[in-house]
Amino acid sequence: MKQLQDAIIERGTVLSTGVLKVDQFLNHQVDTHLMTEIGFEFARLFRDEKVTKVITIESSGIAPSFMCAHQLQTPLIFARKKKSVTMNQANVYSSRVYSFTKQEYSEVTVSKDLIKEGDRVLLIDDFLANGEAASGLINIVEQAGASVVGVGIVIEKSFQNGRKKLEERGLRIESLARIASLEQSTVTFVEEPVAQNN
Amino acid sequence: MKQLQDAIIERGTVLSTGVLKVDQFLNHQVDTHLMTEIGFEFARLFRDEKVTKVITIESSGIAPSFMCAHQLQTPLIFARKKKSVTMNQANVYSSRVYSFTKQEYSEVTVSKDLIKEGDRVLLIDDFLANGEAASGLINIVEQAGASVVGVGIVIEKSFQNGRKKLEERGLRIESLARIASLEQSTVTFVEEPVAQNN
Repeated sequence: MKQLQDAIIERGTVLSTGVLKVDQFLNHQVDTHLMTEIGFEFARLFRDEKVTKVITIESSGIAPSFMCAHQLQTPLIFARKKKSVTMNQANVYSSRVYSFTKQEYSEVTVSKDLIKEGDRVLLIDDFLANGEAASGLINIVEQAGASVVGVGIVIEKSFQNGRKKLEERGLRIESLARIASLEQSTVTFVEEPVAQNN
Repeated sequence: MKQLQDAIIERGTVLSTGVLKVDQFLNHQVDTHLMTEIGFEFARLFRDEKVTKVITIESSGIAPSFMCAHQLQTPLIFARKKKSVTMNQANVYSSRVYSFTKQEYSEVTVSKDLIKEGDRVLLIDDFLANGEAASGLINIVEQAGASVVGVGIVIEKSFQNGRKKLEERGLRIESLARIASLEQSTVTFVEEPVAQNN
């Protein structure tokens, strides 16, 4: 997605060979115009999958998935990373997930009221790196007896093994930007390499 | 806002005299149609305030503020509750906030890159109870030398003192649903009381 690649080049910052900072438009400050286009694109890509629920993880997945769920006319569920007192602990599906960015484990939970057997779930997330978060969400969907009909990713770090892990499970993955490398403080995209010097 | 009051009555659950569970449409599962209407309403209410930034706190503030920022054509900033490795700690404004729902303190932070002196900031949040989260955000905006031009709240617990605290600071507060009481498992709204038996 050209508009997203441009945002990554113009407003992203390579912090290291593994970390791309995108807090100018995605995960701290949100460019709602770009997020709307991203949501529309996910909805277009998965329009024929008969999606009944869109699921993401708080917080950074909410903005890019919002317009997708709105377009597909399905509820949006954001999995919680920490238990809150309003959530009945006997009534949640949960999965342990390692966050690459925060360097810690968290318990990801979804209320059993929200995913039902037979649901066709589209999973959206801001990043795909090692596939930890996505695998945790897939695990939750499967606990509910529902199925994942696709995975929509805003930014894929294609030099990590997340896509491979998910493909081995037979999942359809659509990433709107695929990054081949962050070496030498330069973002190189898969297929259409674009150079950047910070 | 009638549509929101209806959602609270039909899809909310009174858990105690202080806690209203709205995870069917606001803070776990998101009704994107209702959130879009809420965003439009905030944008309409604050249209003349020359807003330059909309700010909220992750995670539950993101969905109701998304379309407001989109309509006002301003960036949306969501304050982070926990520090991440991609955030330079020397470069953030921070404030300590007590969460009524999670019964814990968290450090709320915003990158100094995102709010500038002279910014006219509209603050949006899902709940107003004791005004802790809002006060923390106001504190951050003031650290930046910017000003808060209004506070938009989805659900106000009018039986707690948050509104009073903010009004004493001279702020304009617009709450789309004002709850007078949750006694006897019944939601009673300010001005237009509506009965509910769970």
